Amino acid sequence: MTPFSQPKVLAFDVFGTVVDWHGGIVREVEALGLAVDANAFALAWRGGYRPAMQRVMRGEQGWTRIDDLHRQILDEILPRFGLQAMPEEQRHALNFAWHRLDPWPDVVAGLQRLKQRFILTTLSNGNLSLLVDLARHGGGLPWDCVLSAETFQRYKPDPATYLGVARLLDVQPAQVMLVAAHHDDLAAARACGLGTAYIERPLEFGASQIKDVSPQDGNDLHARSFLHLTELLGA
Amino acid sequence: MTPFSQPKVLAFDVFGTVVDWHGGIVREVEALGLAVDANAFALAWRGGYRPAMQRVMRGEQGWTRIDDLHRQILDEILPRFGLQAMPEEQRHALNFAWHRLDPWPDVVAGLQRLKQRFILTTLSNGNLSLLVDLARHGGGLPWDCVLSAETFQRYKPDPATYLGVARLLDVQPAQVMLVAAHHDDLAAARACGLGTAYIERPLEFGASQIKDVSPQDGNDLHARSFLHLTELLGA
Repeated sequence: MTPFSQPKVLAFDVFGTVVDWHGGIVREVEALGLAVDANAFALAWRGGYRPAMQRVMRGEQGWTRIDDLHRQILDEILPRFGLQAMPEEQRHALNFAWHRLDPWPDVVAGLQRLKQRFILTTLSNGNLSLLVDLARHGGGLPWDCVLSAETFQRYKPDPATYLGVARLLDVQPAQVMLVAAHHDDLAAARACGLGTAYIERPLEFGASQIKDVSPQDGNDLHARSFLHLTELLGA
Repeated sequence: MTPFSQPKVLAFDVFGTVVDWHGGIVREVEALGLAVDANAFALAWRGGYRPAMQRVMRGEQGWTRIDDLHRQILDEILPRFGLQAMPEEQRHALNFAWHRLDPWPDVVAGLQRLKQRFILTTLSNGNLSLLVDLARHGGGLPWDCVLSAETFQRYKPDPATYLGVARLLDVQPAQVMLVAAHHDDLAAARACGLGTAYIERPLEFGASQIKDVSPQDGNDLHARSFLHLTELLGA
């Protein structure tokens, strides 16, 4: 950790950092009473996420929002779980499970404290309507604004996303700090001149696959939770 | 008034509808102790707004955010008020008066009630950083998201702005209702298939120039205030 300049804006990654996608998808799959391993299903669905975005980023597929990528992946994995007969209506409803993910327990209280001192925005690959639904579902995540890959028609880690936050909020890149549970996201933000805060989410992939959350070089801050982050930022 | 379909999203015009630009600019000009008629100064500054946007819309000037248009207009009007000697630093600070406008007294309570039932977004020609500052300044305007002409790189009344709200929030145009104190804005939204609610703001231009706020044909709703709007919407 080197001394860092106090940010004006905190930009938050959402899936895994703010909301517990694994727990939410497992809960919804189990609620449907499907004869599948809900943990494996959640991991497979999320596993298709990066390859799908990469198809868009390589130009093999035009701009496609995450809702539609999630649906493509769902259609791909259902046969692998013996669920190829799932009717359209159920597929559609299940796909919106991604709009009903709960925030981690520290999130609402942490954001409320951070909002007193910083401008809070999302910077997520999730589409805008998904992020708005998550904020309302989560008991009111108090974002000052909701920015998405969709705003820039580029997925993270494209520099246009990190630099776009600074441009739209009229600050220098160094006045934005990305808060994320993923080192690759943070490294891309750092390369654009943003500050970075890593958040430990050891249960991002569920209890069967505990994530290594040990500190790595290069981040300005390393926090166990959003409340810990408030302390590190003196907020 | 014809029967209207209940919206999912309320999109709010901001200058004049949500915040009192005239009162805010008068207050800041008076606080500087300038030897000018603050009322006339505020009206002249706002008077340059539409012509400046039209230069951008006609392509005579590339995309320019409102902060920069406000500054161009300020530089144009200062000599007319004998203030051509105003130093750069003071011009810059005065220009940010537009980020410190107060909401009308009914706004915060009205939005808090409306938020229980509807998704609330801005749809303003103001740039994103300005809208975020206004929301924080105004005691926390509880927007679910902040959309701006800047999001679409088109100023209202371009259809791309009204239709863009529906697209980004993943609803049909008829599921969006524009809330505004200006009939031309509402007419353009109506032409795109949005619902419309007119809000009476008789003091938008100050007490010296009371605005005619009598109902006009075509709007779904005509409300005296945001609290009256909640009643009309059954919220």
